[in-house]
Amino acid sequence: MVSHDQLEQDEKETGRTEAFSDGVFAIAITLLVLELKVPSREVALAKGGLQQALLGQWAMYLAFLTSFATVLVMWVNHHALFTHIRRSRMPFLYLNGLLLFFVTLIPFPTAILAGYIGSGEEPLAVKIYAAICVAICVAFNLLWHYASHGGRLLDRRADMDQVRAITRQYYFGPPLYAVAFVLAFSHAIASLVLCILLALFFAFTGWVRKDHQAASLHRN
Amino acid sequence: MVSHDQLEQDEKETGRTEAFSDGVFAIAITLLVLELKVPSREVALAKGGLQQALLGQWAMYLAFLTSFATVLVMWVNHHALFTHIRRSRMPFLYLNGLLLFFVTLIPFPTAILAGYIGSGEEPLAVKIYAAICVAICVAFNLLWHYASHGGRLLDRRADMDQVRAITRQYYFGPPLYAVAFVLAFSHAIASLVLCILLALFFAFTGWVRKDHQAASLHRN
Amino acid sequence: MVSHDQLEQDEKETGRTEAFSDGVFAIAITLLVLELKVPSREVALAKGGLQQALLGQWAMYLAFLTSFATVLVMWVNHHALFTHIRRSRMPFLYLNGLLLFFVTLIPFPTAILAGYIGSGEEPLAVKIYAAICVAICVAFNLLWHYASHGGRLLDRRADMDQVRAITRQYYFGPPLYAVAFVLAFSHAIASLVLCILLALFFAFTGWVRKDHQAASLHRN
Amino acid sequence: MVSHDQLEQDEKETGRTEAFSDGVFAIAITLLVLELKVPSREVALAKGGLQQALLGQWAMYLAFLTSFATVLVMWVNHHALFTHIRRSRMPFLYLNGLLLFFVTLIPFPTAILAGYIGSGEEPLAVKIYAAICVAICVAFNLLWHYASHGGRLLDRRADMDQVRAITRQYYFGPPLYAVAFVLAFSHAIASLVLCILLALFFAFTGWVRKDHQAASLHRN
Repeated sequence: MVSHDQLEQDEKETGRTEAFSDGVFAIAITLLVLELKVPSREVALAKGGLQQALLGQWAMYLAFLTSFATVLVMWVNHHALFTHIRRSRMPFLYLNGLLLFFVTLIPFPTAILAGYIGSGEEPLAVKIYAAICVAICVAFNLLWHYASHGGRLLDRRADMDQVRAITRQYYFGPPLYAVAFVLAFSHAIASLVLCILLALFFAFTGWVRKDHQAASLHRN
Repeated sequence: MVSHDQLEQDEKETGRTEAFSDGVFAIAITLLVLELKVPSREVALAKGGLQQALLGQWAMYLAFLTSFATVLVMWVNHHALFTHIRRSRMPFLYLNGLLLFFVTLIPFPTAILAGYIGSGEEPLAVKIYAAICVAICVAFNLLWHYASHGGRLLDRRADMDQVRAITRQYYFGPPLYAVAFVLAFSHAIASLVLCILLALFFAFTGWVRKDHQAASLHRN
Repeated sequence: MVSHDQLEQDEKETGRTEAFSDGVFAIAITLLVLELKVPSREVALAKGGLQQALLGQWAMYLAFLTSFATVLVMWVNHHALFTHIRRSRMPFLYLNGLLLFFVTLIPFPTAILAGYIGSGEEPLAVKIYAAICVAICVAFNLLWHYASHGGRLLDRRADMDQVRAITRQYYFGPPLYAVAFVLAFSHAIASLVLCILLALFFAFTGWVRKDHQAASLHRN
Repeated sequence: MVSHDQLEQDEKETGRTEAFSDGVFAIAITLLVLELKVPSREVALAKGGLQQALLGQWAMYLAFLTSFATVLVMWVNHHALFTHIRRSRMPFLYLNGLLLFFVTLIPFPTAILAGYIGSGEEPLAVKIYAAICVAICVAFNLLWHYASHGGRLLDRRADMDQVRAITRQYYFGPPLYAVAFVLAFSHAIASLVLCILLALFFAFTGWVRKDHQAASLHRN
């Protein structure tokens, strides 16, 4: 038996893990803007004006947009997982830390992308980006597997159909991003577009899952 | 029917969305200071001393002040909206993400402003700034419309007069900032002043609304 | 009469203001480290090794330490104020925003200090630093005056002796930092030392106040 | 006697200290990525391509990884301490501030490490890194000693066996990191490897402690 005090304690523990994770996601998503460099007056003059200089940085905006969308979708998914998780354990904290490690890394491949699109080095830049995405997907799977295996850290009231639906959906992530990684060897831009589409896919499947949840609630 | 557990779950969900949003607002507002560059000793010497060098950076301070005020007013408004919102849905999270996207962008047009006031390129710098403000207003409208339409995500105890008052007030934002955007084509500084006045206007209308709320409370 | 729902609503509102403020304080205090620049290998070589190059940056470490201590003491004081405050109003949010404005500014005068100690321009650097400290003290007074006047936003159970003790203590801040500001005209380093001593003073008076509070609790 | 109101007040106070600390940990761990510099196109060209340029930065990645793991383990330990702490006092806030001071410093020795591995100046870089780790361990000991001495700030339901186990374990930190510090005089890389092993050690002992806790719970 687990006491009421322990339950309260558990909620407090996942609460602080969520707060720490939210902080890391919020900072990672906000730091991305530091990659948007303002062209100096000298550069603007050389390019024929500020407008030309700003438009010439399209790769930077594309990298920013892709990374923002990716981190946002990850946050939403992290948030969705934690609505089912109620208890904490040390390995869980470190698996969450592994996930956050790759999330905080994202500004680095973003900056590589922004700096090397149009340079002939895109394949490497996109490969690095896709590799980080594969790593994040694997970390999400590890975290969720640890938490949900035998209902280890789940809310006692968690709907097991939903839990299994998340597990099934999460299996798709690593192979799909691995395809993007392999594609980068021959078609860099197509691989980057696939990364964006995958972010949208995970956004959308999350959406459906939640509406289903809302619908099942209304039936009760 | 919605169960008590679900109500608690809902509160927890908007709570984490607020925490994530607060993090993003807090970081965006604090990162602005990184745009305040200290003149190097060489520059200070060339300009006739540190004081002259610092005073020569007035555009930087003006841009910093405008952006700080803008983000603060946005945070207060976001905060005011969430006092009425109690439930969450996936599209709501993404609409909130869209709003945060433009909020995290603000340091970029601020840096453009700081770098190009006095360069003859002010119109473009101010246009970009005003365009981001229009986008933020539209995102606020979308978020609020989604949450309040048919009371979808509102607190069951929300005062519908107030809800409608917010809706009416929010309609003003996009056209007013659009005027600032158009004005930037001919009068850049006047457009920037209008952006500051609009921030004050939204600060002030929020103020009245809350005092009205406090007053109506005291009548009960 | 104020309903129970309104009380809950109030707690939630000050809660989010505290969370936002905590975020700003935490970021401002952590961003200070970005002012600690690592000397390049070229500079280290020119100065006779990494150790000499690092020791030559003592002004940078002093500025970092002073600013860290100042922001920490401010956070503790902000935290102490909010243990007495239970309700929120729009003007209160903007006065808190004014305080946070000056807090987020701190990395800027810190960087000026770090760059100009030993340059002959110390008086100006210290004056700017002291001026920001005066502004923060004034903002603390405005915030506390607004919240405590007639008990406007205070906890109904607040100990009025303590409230008056805070009010009295806060009056000391602006004139004491004004002395530091004036002192900077003739004795820059003495003025900076006074700023550090004032931070310690406010840390210490807060300390006594709390222990008094703890003691009075044990008597109950 | 302590009233129920005071208990609630206490929880609120440690809650805000945790939130502020979480913010500082989250920002410190996320700022580390700013040390990962993208080689410029010129540098990449000079080194024979982007891949060679990126691989040449292995010291930067090693420093990043070490620091990320160190901050994460510290956060988990901080988090574990606060599950036992329920009350707050002014000296406790300043001891926590001392700990956070050294935590926010970490990006600085990390940047030194990243810049000087392979330069012949590694011993100094590793000594600085190990010295900061010693300081953090001492600060952890001071914080925990203040909180746990006579159960001063502990939860009234804290398991005293566990409290003593933490105290014993924490005594190991400073001497072990001091060994790493001394080792840096003769074997810089071995010292850095020891720092990584110590982070793993503290991660692992925490792990055992928690599982023991979970096990003792299941017996109840």
